[in-house]
Amino acid sequence: MNLKIALLPGDGIGPEVIQQAIKVLDAVAEKYKHTFEYKKASVGAIAIDETGDPLPDKTLKICAESDAILFGAIGDPKYDNNPSAKVRPEQGLLKLRKSLGLFANIRPLTTYDDLIHKSNLKPEVIRGTNFVIYRELTSGIYFGKKELSEDGKEAFDTCKYTIEEIDRITHLAFKAAQVRRKKLTLVDKSNVLETSRLWRKRVAEISKSYSNVLVDYLFVDNAAMQLILNPTQFDVILTENMFGDILSDEASVISGSIGLLASASIGTNSAMFEPIHGSFPQAKGKNIANPLAAILSAAMLLDHFELYDEAEDIRIAVEKSIELNITTPDLNSTNHFSTTNVGNFLSDFILDDE
Amino acid sequence: MNLKIALLPGDGIGPEVIQQAIKVLDAVAEKYKHTFEYKKASVGAIAIDETGDPLPDKTLKICAESDAILFGAIGDPKYDNNPSAKVRPEQGLLKLRKSLGLFANIRPLTTYDDLIHKSNLKPEVIRGTNFVIYRELTSGIYFGKKELSEDGKEAFDTCKYTIEEIDRITHLAFKAAQVRRKKLTLVDKSNVLETSRLWRKRVAEISKSYSNVLVDYLFVDNAAMQLILNPTQFDVILTENMFGDILSDEASVISGSIGLLASASIGTNSAMFEPIHGSFPQAKGKNIANPLAAILSAAMLLDHFELYDEAEDIRIAVEKSIELNITTPDLNSTNHFSTTNVGNFLSDFILDDE
Ligand SMILES: [Mg+2]
Ligand SMILES: [Mg+2]
Repeated sequence: MNLKIALLPGDGIGPEVIQQAIKVLDAVAEKYKHTFEYKKASVGAIAIDETGDPLPDKTLKICAESDAILFGAIGDPKYDNNPSAKVRPEQGLLKLRKSLGLFANIRPLTTYDDLIHKSNLKPEVIRGTNFVIYRELTSGIYFGKKELSEDGKEAFDTCKYTIEEIDRITHLAFKAAQVRRKKLTLVDKSNVLETSRLWRKRVAEISKSYSNVLVDYLFVDNAAMQLILNPTQFDVILTENMFGDILSDEASVISGSIGLLASASIGTNSAMFEPIHGSFPQAKGKNIANPLAAILSAAMLLDHFELYDEAEDIRIAVEKSIELNITTPDLNSTNHFSTTNVGNFLSDFILDDE
Repeated sequence: MNLKIALLPGDGIGPEVIQQAIKVLDAVAEKYKHTFEYKKASVGAIAIDETGDPLPDKTLKICAESDAILFGAIGDPKYDNNPSAKVRPEQGLLKLRKSLGLFANIRPLTTYDDLIHKSNLKPEVIRGTNFVIYRELTSGIYFGKKELSEDGKEAFDTCKYTIEEIDRITHLAFKAAQVRRKKLTLVDKSNVLETSRLWRKRVAEISKSYSNVLVDYLFVDNAAMQLILNPTQFDVILTENMFGDILSDEASVISGSIGLLASASIGTNSAMFEPIHGSFPQAKGKNIANPLAAILSAAMLLDHFELYDEAEDIRIAVEKSIELNITTPDLNSTNHFSTTNVGNFLSDFILDDE
């Protein structure tokens, strides 16, 4: 297979982990005789520094012309901690999602037996956790009209949803539930918010077409509790943009393996894959960043094109590296390996293991 | 001291737990020669059933004429699960907070050694947790303009904040930090929301007047993670309405003693005290509801009027009941006691312990 992959390493540790993901993708290409063509483009703080724009047109064009996008991380403290900065790195990611119509952010969450002891939650609570969050990604309060009054004395943000925006991700989530454990939990705040009531109404309506899926409704504050009280109850969680942001980050620390979490952002014609960890500026350039999440994001990318054996090869290599403790300092406090070493091990393992 | 206390037992288990709180307050009154005058009023689903209004004018009048309000719980599944219900129990609570100007919701969170094993988090993670959340309570998206379009195809909600709304709770939170461990963490989403940027700007400005307090800023999605990763890092958490709703509920399950959590809602001229647990309709009328949170809310009420010895008497009695396992089924799976029994033990203990 010939795949055009846009590479958007972004800020902080993004470039270092994406480099290892490429190494692993190249090993897979060599082993299975695929051709992966990469085109690199800038986004985020580094793009602001270079061009003044967190998402230059050139980057957007490269993404639109690619089959898939592999994304690193975004964000830099020099912009984040400056409330009066006019242009922000995150705007690049938000604009990219909007421009490509990446309306669904998908975050699978499972536990790894070798890492379960790393969690702050008790092993018996989290063992067997296996859910996926479908978060609406291109609408809601992050994209609504917002304004600071001229005298600087009041501000507002608007959360808006249309039924088209609700319906398309709801169908995706129901389809995912059908091939999983057939349970979908809508998280909203329908006792207070009008947009939440619209979500609940649409989900109830659409659920009629997926009669083999059990539908459950939770208020967002209760959901924040349930993720800690009983994470194994969930199969597919469906929610709007901001609730999804908060809950998926909360969920990410449940498993004890946040350094391994990958994600996909899916639209009608585009698909982007990225590790969920941030730009982690403190670790930048030190060759200590954990590349496994970026590498597992590359595996999700292969799954998306039905290259299941190839994706499985990567996952087996990752499990092997954890088993052998060939891991970065975040997973391995004594004899740890560098970012580069971990990437080398994985690509060698994939090529040797024939 | 002569105190006029409005009693709003509300829905579900509210009436049962408030009854025990009164029993304990009466014991304190007898021991210390105070006079507590109670006036009962209806709110929530029960008020809708009686009058069609979740906050009848009569209830509001009783509250306004009282020195403090002791509140039970609100909410009933017959309204919550009906997206087309026009009148909702929660509207009663929202309107009450708004009418009395209860702009700050205060939730202390500490661990109890005898209950620490109940938490899903590891004891070494949560031991020593001692923070308080200051949540803005009368503005933000829950109170902003909201609308469903006539064709039912789109909906919106508005989050609005003025600097007056931000400043008054910010001062309260800084004052609390000054008499605690002198750290304040503002939780916002200032990389995306205009209202959050206004919060951050005001808090940075006001912090200059509290130079002995260390100020920290966290994005809400990160805060949802930090509560699990390292809850002992927090002293005073300050945040807007919806973030506070989500985070304070998440925080409530950290300690393993959710049945004991009390809260206060403070305004310029009124103060309301309530257990944080909900109306728990499944337990209604079974005499199994845990009354300790309602009773500890009564202790917060006494603190508010500087009746510190009286409040301490209640807390000592509560600790004794936990130590002796004189507790309801949620804390005590084998030889549990009824709601009434626990209330009787506490009031007897307060009167005997002279
Ligand atoms: Mg996030
Ligand atoms: Mg809540």
